[in-house]
Amino acid sequence: MEHEILESIKTTGDIKKLNNDRLEKLCSELRDEIINKVSETGGHLASNLGAVELTVALHYVFDSPNEPIIWDVGHQCYSHKILTGRDITGIRTEGGLSGFPKSAESEHDLFVAGHASTSISAALGIAEAKKIAGSDDSVIAVVGDGAFSGGMIFEAMNNAGRSKTNLIVVLNDNEMSISPNVGAMAKYLANIRSKESYFRFKDNLEHALLKIPAIGKGIFTALRSVKTFFKDMFYSSNTFEHLGFTYLGPADGHDIEMLIRTLNRAKSIKRPVLVHINTVKGKGYEPAEKNPSKFHGVAPFYKETGELKKSSGNSFSSEFGKNICKLAEKDGKICAITAAMTDGTGLREFSEKYPERFFDVGIAEEHAMTFAAGLAAGGMKPVFAVYSTFLQRAYDQILHDASIEPKHVVIGIDRAGIVGGDGETHQGTFDVPLLTTIPGITVYSPSDYSELGRNLEKAFSSEGVQAVRYPRDSEKEIPEKFKKEYGDFDYFKGEKNCLIVTYGRLFVEAAFAAEETGSSVLKIGKIFPIEQELIEIAKKYEKVLFFEESVENGSIAEHFGKMLIESGFDGKYKTFCVSGFVPHMKVENAMKIHGLDRESMINAVKEALK
Amino acid sequence: MEHEILESIKTTGDIKKLNNDRLEKLCSELRDEIINKVSETGGHLASNLGAVELTVALHYVFDSPNEPIIWDVGHQCYSHKILTGRDITGIRTEGGLSGFPKSAESEHDLFVAGHASTSISAALGIAEAKKIAGSDDSVIAVVGDGAFSGGMIFEAMNNAGRSKTNLIVVLNDNEMSISPNVGAMAKYLANIRSKESYFRFKDNLEHALLKIPAIGKGIFTALRSVKTFFKDMFYSSNTFEHLGFTYLGPADGHDIEMLIRTLNRAKSIKRPVLVHINTVKGKGYEPAEKNPSKFHGVAPFYKETGELKKSSGNSFSSEFGKNICKLAEKDGKICAITAAMTDGTGLREFSEKYPERFFDVGIAEEHAMTFAAGLAAGGMKPVFAVYSTFLQRAYDQILHDASIEPKHVVIGIDRAGIVGGDGETHQGTFDVPLLTTIPGITVYSPSDYSELGRNLEKAFSSEGVQAVRYPRDSEKEIPEKFKKEYGDFDYFKGEKNCLIVTYGRLFVEAAFAAEETGSSVLKIGKIFPIEQELIEIAKKYEKVLFFEESVENGSIAEHFGKMLIESGFDGKYKTFCVSGFVPHMKVENAMKIHGLDRESMINAVKEALK
Repeated sequence: MEHEILESIKTTGDIKKLNNDRLEKLCSELRDEIINKVSETGGHLASNLGAVELTVALHYVFDSPNEPIIWDVGHQCYSHKILTGRDITGIRTEGGLSGFPKSAESEHDLFVAGHASTSISAALGIAEAKKIAGSDDSVIAVVGDGAFSGGMIFEAMNNAGRSKTNLIVVLNDNEMSISPNVGAMAKYLANIRSKESYFRFKDNLEHALLKIPAIGKGIFTALRSVKTFFKDMFYSSNTFEHLGFTYLGPADGHDIEMLIRTLNRAKSIKRPVLVHINTVKGKGYEPAEKNPSKFHGVAPFYKETGELKKSSGNSFSSEFGKNICKLAEKDGKICAITAAMTDGTGLREFSEKYPERFFDVGIAEEHAMTFAAGLAAGGMKPVFAVYSTFLQRAYDQILHDASIEPKHVVIGIDRAGIVGGDGETHQGTFDVPLLTTIPGITVYSPSDYSELGRNLEKAFSSEGVQAVRYPRDSEKEIPEKFKKEYGDFDYFKGEKNCLIVTYGRLFVEAAFAAEETGSSVLKIGKIFPIEQELIEIAKKYEKVLFFEESVENGSIAEHFGKMLIESGFDGKYKTFCVSGFVPHMKVENAMKIHGLDRESMINAVKEALK
Repeated sequence: MEHEILESIKTTGDIKKLNNDRLEKLCSELRDEIINKVSETGGHLASNLGAVELTVALHYVFDSPNEPIIWDVGHQCYSHKILTGRDITGIRTEGGLSGFPKSAESEHDLFVAGHASTSISAALGIAEAKKIAGSDDSVIAVVGDGAFSGGMIFEAMNNAGRSKTNLIVVLNDNEMSISPNVGAMAKYLANIRSKESYFRFKDNLEHALLKIPAIGKGIFTALRSVKTFFKDMFYSSNTFEHLGFTYLGPADGHDIEMLIRTLNRAKSIKRPVLVHINTVKGKGYEPAEKNPSKFHGVAPFYKETGELKKSSGNSFSSEFGKNICKLAEKDGKICAITAAMTDGTGLREFSEKYPERFFDVGIAEEHAMTFAAGLAAGGMKPVFAVYSTFLQRAYDQILHDASIEPKHVVIGIDRAGIVGGDGETHQGTFDVPLLTTIPGITVYSPSDYSELGRNLEKAFSSEGVQAVRYPRDSEKEIPEKFKKEYGDFDYFKGEKNCLIVTYGRLFVEAAFAAEETGSSVLKIGKIFPIEQELIEIAKKYEKVLFFEESVENGSIAEHFGKMLIESGFDGKYKTFCVSGFVPHMKVENAMKIHGLDRESMINAVKEALK
């Protein structure tokens, strides 16, 4: 049998019966399974390979789901999914498992976790609930060092440290968040790590002493009473202890025996404990160990070589990066900010060319936005490049810090619209409603690369908060007669009394639908504020259909409808938007389901013209 | 002359010419001025009295506005306003100064600050901009210990610690945020404070040595080289140093000579420094020293006694608190959470009756929301009571942590709508658009106390995220024939073909307007999701007017309009909402300006019926 031990695990209880050799073998089988399956479908690889031993040790020591494990970020949960009876074949594709914890899949997934730094807050809530109910079960939060730069972690630690709960925080320290983690905390962790030898010594000593029954326990207790002395001598007091946690570590995150011992100790302490472990991202798969950033979230690849099956090519992200470099060459005031997404947002080249004007702030979107406002107050021209879904974190900072007293800040919003495999937690379908509540903001949504370039140029030469939002992936081929250099809006007149209004990448679909049906198209480039001119065009039509890759409440379609009704429009107005949370599936499929693909548009026009 | 020295200060440069005695006298004059003026208009008193010496020392040492001072939270800036040539008579009232820093008032106010924990991010941005421009001016952030519990502070410190900027963070530690600060960080600060004697000794020693020219400097340098030894001996390493800051303190925040010396040293270090000072909230005014929470933000009072000129009486906040206590008595699963606003949100009684189910998490709205979701995942029924404006911080947590996998969490949203004296930074006019983007959420907006009670009861007996939003201040008298026990919606038929739709406290105004004009009124109680039944009522009218205390984009009025247009409505629809940011002024005046008062409603109906 290929995965003999893995196949013998029917419940998590079976893990507890294995001896150390078999636990190690289980880890190797898990690695093999993860590499096999992720190479087929793509997914988060490096962090999952790093967390194999930890996951096995957690299920060995704790009794999930009574003692729940909250993963932060959730994409390191593949081993956990496998060990709790789930098949990861086809993960992140329609019909397959989610790439993140999902309670609908298993009672072992108590809390969703697609955004970082939420786990300690959630776990503390669960732990306080257990305390009120009189249970002394442990609750475990596993936090990557990348997620540790998020402010919520400190808000939660500040509260957890004074609680009387059995909360265990495992700091899974792989010296690398998505982009290398370069904050002061990272430096501090490195400093702690360098003292590992002491912990190993102390741990081994205690372990040896405990093996001598009766006598051992006595000595151990005595040893504990001088722990303050020991600790102060070796690493004096540390920040986690200042925050009220008992600190254990750093421990080798690939030594299963040591992990089990450390976690057992954490479990016995019955108050908040921080277990600091060192892991290697991509552990056990050479290409991923060598290039963990590439294998963080990866497309399907040849597992023998680690080469991608399809090269990634140009994308809106890479075009964004190129444009920012071009603009920065001419203007020494342009600065770029990312929250741990240098590669994802296309800023690698900028970071290398203009290091003094480049800021990777870690997973810290709130800070990033206000920091950008500060740079602007100091006379710079900052652009904050961020995924739409993560910008949700910085709403108050856009409103309060950048807009009440307007600062000239550009926001480059990547992954706007439907995103595909990451599913519910990562959809970029909420930013338009958020942004359009903000007085004074301007929002652009380009349909192709060259429009993206012009939008950025305009954003940098305007004032106040300027947002340019663009989708994941690459531009699509537009039918010849709709191709041109787009302006703030473009109007394509057809012969039928029906108008399609849309923006962004949906314009391509709309152009095809218009060709097929003879309807007109109003393509908006500067989507907010909405110019009255657009309403004047639309109100001449009997049928107006608005297609938009956003939730409906607060969408441009809704604002447009409101303006239309106030203008005295007396035709039929219909909107096609994204409803609810969109699970993981191909972008094209999601478009179809929400009536936003070419065919749905054609049918909608035909229906309207009946 | 009453304020002889104060009146002699024409520019901040004049402060630098004063000797220590006169500086002390200046502080006493400032206190006097603040107590006089705040007793007349109300405002933030206790924190301003605590920051007098600090403000004088900052302007003595630094060269504002080139070396800008960013106040966090901004309400401690009254002395700063006075010293930079502004008259605080009538502060927070229409025509008077804002209660927060405001760049339109003075070049000395570089950054708005009505929400907490933003200062280090902003200051770091300004400092990086200065660095790029080749300036070595200092940038100062003054942060209260309350604001220190906000996650943005740590995100910013994590980034600042590795920067090469002349950033100076003054931690203004008064052992008390708005509610007493009980987190682990507060405990840690208390621990540091207890070592003050050492700093004073070291500071005095260095000061004495420096007075001996030539020799002094040499010894001083030698002393510095053993600083690590000293430091480790006395307070070993501290968290701020772990985060990359040079730590100075704790210093007595009311000893002007010591403050000046410490700040001068911070200025000379030319890298990020944290200056930790201890102050007394309410310093120099006995009633405020005794009860700093009452005098945090206070209504007009008799300065001789500290008694309020008008007793506060009942309010939606106090009614909220009473209702939660009543519900919690019957249901042991109900927990209440506040982010440092126990009194402000009316939870004092709950906190005393049910301490084990009460959580004050400090200024940490993001954590509060996810913690609530965690409590719900653990089987509790949490309510998070929060001001509308601060809930903006937790949008992503409501969406991602509480709604993608729905958790039964109740949000009690206080200060919904227009708030009055606090102005732009505190308006509760954005929560409706935010909340209504969230799939599955239910939102209530009661018009009187008894409806608030029923809404809360319903919220606790339903599922998913349930928000109940209510205004500041007290309920208003409703005309007799519109009084009743309100349901999810109530329809009052008038004789004219015009319908007013509204909710919350505006219903009172609408009722009066309807009485006067004969129009009908549709009062919505459960404002979201909008039931189709409401549309069916409205579409029978020729004129429909929607009045709403919210920004328009994403408002219920807009959603309603959209549903109306799709229903085939062919009348006139007009909305009256809040536009832009509303500055500080009486609620009634703001209502008038935005067309939401009784008279404006009457005029709007008459205009529509013409």
